[in-house]
Amino acid sequence: MSVNKEDFASQASRLSEEVTRPFPNSTKIHVTGSRDDIRVPMREITQSPTQTSGQSEPNPSIVVYDTSGPFTDPAQEVDLLRGMPDVRGPWIEERGDTEWLAGPSSEYGARRQGDPDLAHLRFEHLRRPRRARPGMNVTQMHYARRGIVTPEMEYVAIRENCRLGALRGDPRYADLLRQHPGNGFGANLPEEITPEFVRSEIAAGRAIIPANINHPEVEPMIIGRNFRVKINTNIGNSAVTSSIAEEVEKMAWSARWGGDTLMDLSTGKNIHETREWILRNAPMPIGTVPIYQALEKVDGKAEALTWEIMRDTLIEQAEQGVDYFTIHAGVLLRYVPLTARRLTGIVSRGGSILAKWCLAHHRENFLYTHFEEICEIMKAYDVAFSLGDGLRPGSLADANDAAQFGELETLGELTRVAWEHDVQVMIEGPGHVPMQMIEENMTKELKDCHEAPFYTLGPIVTDFAPGYDHITSAIGAAQIGWYGTAMLCYVTPKEHLGLPDKEDVREGIIAYKIAAQAADLAKGFPGAQMRDNAMSKARFEFRWEDQFNLAFDPDRARAYHDQTMPAQAHKVAHFCSMCGPNFCSMKITQDVRDYAARKGIGVDLAMKEGMREKAEQFKGEGGAIYPECFINH
Amino acid sequence: MSVNKEDFASQASRLSEEVTRPFPNSTKIHVTGSRDDIRVPMREITQSPTQTSGQSEPNPSIVVYDTSGPFTDPAQEVDLLRGMPDVRGPWIEERGDTEWLAGPSSEYGARRQGDPDLAHLRFEHLRRPRRARPGMNVTQMHYARRGIVTPEMEYVAIRENCRLGALRGDPRYADLLRQHPGNGFGANLPEEITPEFVRSEIAAGRAIIPANINHPEVEPMIIGRNFRVKINTNIGNSAVTSSIAEEVEKMAWSARWGGDTLMDLSTGKNIHETREWILRNAPMPIGTVPIYQALEKVDGKAEALTWEIMRDTLIEQAEQGVDYFTIHAGVLLRYVPLTARRLTGIVSRGGSILAKWCLAHHRENFLYTHFEEICEIMKAYDVAFSLGDGLRPGSLADANDAAQFGELETLGELTRVAWEHDVQVMIEGPGHVPMQMIEENMTKELKDCHEAPFYTLGPIVTDFAPGYDHITSAIGAAQIGWYGTAMLCYVTPKEHLGLPDKEDVREGIIAYKIAAQAADLAKGFPGAQMRDNAMSKARFEFRWEDQFNLAFDPDRARAYHDQTMPAQAHKVAHFCSMCGPNFCSMKITQDVRDYAARKGIGVDLAMKEGMREKAEQFKGEGGAIYPECFINH
Repeated sequence: MSVNKEDFASQASRLSEEVTRPFPNSTKIHVTGSRDDIRVPMREITQSPTQTSGQSEPNPSIVVYDTSGPFTDPAQEVDLLRGMPDVRGPWIEERGDTEWLAGPSSEYGARRQGDPDLAHLRFEHLRRPRRARPGMNVTQMHYARRGIVTPEMEYVAIRENCRLGALRGDPRYADLLRQHPGNGFGANLPEEITPEFVRSEIAAGRAIIPANINHPEVEPMIIGRNFRVKINTNIGNSAVTSSIAEEVEKMAWSARWGGDTLMDLSTGKNIHETREWILRNAPMPIGTVPIYQALEKVDGKAEALTWEIMRDTLIEQAEQGVDYFTIHAGVLLRYVPLTARRLTGIVSRGGSILAKWCLAHHRENFLYTHFEEICEIMKAYDVAFSLGDGLRPGSLADANDAAQFGELETLGELTRVAWEHDVQVMIEGPGHVPMQMIEENMTKELKDCHEAPFYTLGPIVTDFAPGYDHITSAIGAAQIGWYGTAMLCYVTPKEHLGLPDKEDVREGIIAYKIAAQAADLAKGFPGAQMRDNAMSKARFEFRWEDQFNLAFDPDRARAYHDQTMPAQAHKVAHFCSMCGPNFCSMKITQDVRDYAARKGIGVDLAMKEGMREKAEQFKGEGGAIYPECFINH
Repeated sequence: MSVNKEDFASQASRLSEEVTRPFPNSTKIHVTGSRDDIRVPMREITQSPTQTSGQSEPNPSIVVYDTSGPFTDPAQEVDLLRGMPDVRGPWIEERGDTEWLAGPSSEYGARRQGDPDLAHLRFEHLRRPRRARPGMNVTQMHYARRGIVTPEMEYVAIRENCRLGALRGDPRYADLLRQHPGNGFGANLPEEITPEFVRSEIAAGRAIIPANINHPEVEPMIIGRNFRVKINTNIGNSAVTSSIAEEVEKMAWSARWGGDTLMDLSTGKNIHETREWILRNAPMPIGTVPIYQALEKVDGKAEALTWEIMRDTLIEQAEQGVDYFTIHAGVLLRYVPLTARRLTGIVSRGGSILAKWCLAHHRENFLYTHFEEICEIMKAYDVAFSLGDGLRPGSLADANDAAQFGELETLGELTRVAWEHDVQVMIEGPGHVPMQMIEENMTKELKDCHEAPFYTLGPIVTDFAPGYDHITSAIGAAQIGWYGTAMLCYVTPKEHLGLPDKEDVREGIIAYKIAAQAADLAKGFPGAQMRDNAMSKARFEFRWEDQFNLAFDPDRARAYHDQTMPAQAHKVAHFCSMCGPNFCSMKITQDVRDYAARKGIGVDLAMKEGMREKAEQFKGEGGAIYPECFINH
């Protein structure tokens, strides 16, 4: 870890321009809730007007869900040395059920904080940790079950709606809001998401808001089958060292492209300090796998792990503000032999660590035997469980086998226990699964885990496309998202091969934004089709700039367009130089429209077919034709 | 068109090395059929042995379907000036139902051939065209219906099997051939594909072998729901000029990565000559959209098109050897008004041309009114119909509407007509469709078009990811392929933005190979999982070189791996440097195995659970654990 504060001040107190640059033609807006300090960020994309035969008709702006955080807000001064703004502090304070601690109550946390050798690495403005007052439970689930609608719940309700209610009343959006009915496989998607609906979903355990009381910087978001499908991204310096500055940059980069949550899977030295830097600057919920750090504390000897070390690690990370923990408590002693016949054994690192521990001591998984004590810690900080699938299949061959489904049933049992403590839970899923076996994973998870949110990795639908596993897995992710998975853990093109660089992270995120959007559309999430409709209208009208700006990745769309048609004229011209004037269907469109209008052919044709209504439309609008110039036939 | 023969001799009599280079550790093999001149090419990938504690156990080679043609055969001298070897000539000759013509019988073809100014562009070794003798019908469907199994049918049967029958009898493949049961949505997938099965599928119209008697260079392949899912790629110089040499190189590039058929969508000058160069060197079936060339002949004025011009163009291209024609005969006058209310009107260029013609003359589509005459031409050369979906949706909003489905019903009616002439037919499909509406397209096509093979473009499942439409469409393609689509038309990352370069073509092809493979697995195509199993075993055993070699794209897999782990040691080392020694689950695996073996824990555990059988396995094999190092949690 080479970075020190001076480096930070110089290189990273500001993030790189490509991370903070606002999106083209976009404005960061904030929708205020029932109180002034509930200000929900969204991105408003401005469109250019439609030009037709001299006339100009304005197109309304499109409001989209915004994960990019304060980084893309010109009104925000981004200083990584100070951290991001405090969003939730007052809400937590008001509840009066927490207390400030003098310092870290974990032995390890205290030691790191007191170590003068780490001064140059340490985040400067350390906040004292908060903890629930004795006997108190500070989870969102606890409040929800007591009928309390928290500011966090109202925040996510506003965020999920993306101003849909207001747009419905605005005639300019009437056409853009047209949407096909979905098939939700039993999902319950109300026309408008109210704070009360959010509360009821959380109370029922069908959704979670990962929001540790020690992570007030988080912009609350919700993970549940009846909300927008979310995606998670991973960072982690792993063996290949990367500086704290690089990790923070990666976190912001992930936020920019659409990561809803982020897991810090660092395994290098100083991960305690790295985590602090990330949390103090992270607008999204942060997840970790505490067993990794626990294992480092025992020099990587799984059999040397103890509950005490794990417990101290959980408290250490909870007091830093980690929002959810992956806990592999379902890897039971009796399941390990079930992996013997597998083609690829146990592929989850957490799972393998615990399998080894179980066999070494020939005792039951200590995360399972101490699960209630873990719940006590979780509810004192509101850390959510991400119950890990340590026995997930690592190949198509091992999909849906006894080990995987045995563990899933145990995760369902543990879900019940966590819920008795009002601790929020989501369930991790595979992995590698052929398409015809994906739905069974969802059906079984909903049944065995009592509808707790499902959080899957892909699944990858074929094993032999290394270098393209963002695609093999986006195919599976889109399907399982449609069936009801609440959050999709992204996969990059480097999966199975190497560590992703920034480009890989972008590729992986966009592939997963596509999968999540496809799932929202298929389920029929209200308003999900608006941006598709706006893009299609812009396409039909050759509004190239709007096409770029409405895209998931405006930079790439523009760059690809410019490779073929660099001239500025090509971004305004009302014909497409791809096909040449004689071949442009857009030109043909106009001809057809003229014919239709002049001769009323549309009408008289339609009359012949007795399609009076259609005829009237045609008379009014003309037969519209536009080319997919790069498909052609 | 700047190229002349001298350029060819210098630059393109050989293809570039990256196109002809054999795949790593791969051998081109030929499986001989009932006669010596039926030699079906396949690719055999050699694997390295498994090393475990000093012992070495060989891994059998994997035979894969090979589209790469003579270009990757070291035994072949590739000379574009002479063209590729004659595969089918003798078979066609033997049937005795064709005759050699003195020269092109199309007016345009004759004129081009006689034009001295084109000498420098013209393919040197022009063959005289063949045509069915008067009253004869030379289609594969005609033979099939008369009970004749042609060499072409036997060829594709051998090709589809990929030696599966032989491998089934070989104990070394027992584990590799383990496969999950599929869900074929009514597909009929026999354990072994016999020539007779091929014949019966073609006779029933459920499959086609696109193989013009004037394209003897083609390596026969089959398109049908009960065979491997195929993919099509597109080339075409379009407005942006590209030389003949470049087009031929692109064709070979497409073959290398897995294109099963190729459509030449060129719209520039000299497309007649370009087509000749492509056909004489193409091992895969070539498709075109003849209306494009017909339109050029009338200077792009759709209303100036006549049946006579179209007829001459069909004969011109049929005598060059085009294997299938996209014919937009379903764009009926009465359907055009139905597009008036669409968000994106008519996006098919062919569809828009015919819509314009219909309105201009206020008469029915001349391809519809002359359909029987078209059939007469098709059966004289065995050109297959690809009945075009000129009214396919260009946006999610327009999916599955009255115009699209009205045209589909007409395509079903035309299919019956074509079949009365024993002309082979496939049906083109969309386009842009949200996931929940994809299955209806397949169900309706099977019903309305009497199970004729479906050939779809994607579908794209969300509209606003320009720059990533190979992914948005691969998601839809995998699903519709699973439901029963026989061939998937690829989409590149440049879709909607610009013209694809070689990298885009590779990206698009691999995305579609993934979709097709995912579909074959989901349907349960026999043997489909073998390569997945081999890859997973190689992964589990850290046989990096085998992982690269078994991949769809060995070059990229290796390149990505080397970016993180360049050293040669990393390709043999039995631990993964990604996670560092303490974190490598592979190392943990070994520990677990040792424990299990030494203490028999697996056994005694399993006994406790009354899992005697499992216990025995565990005793024998140990609990196997391996890391997905780049997933981690």
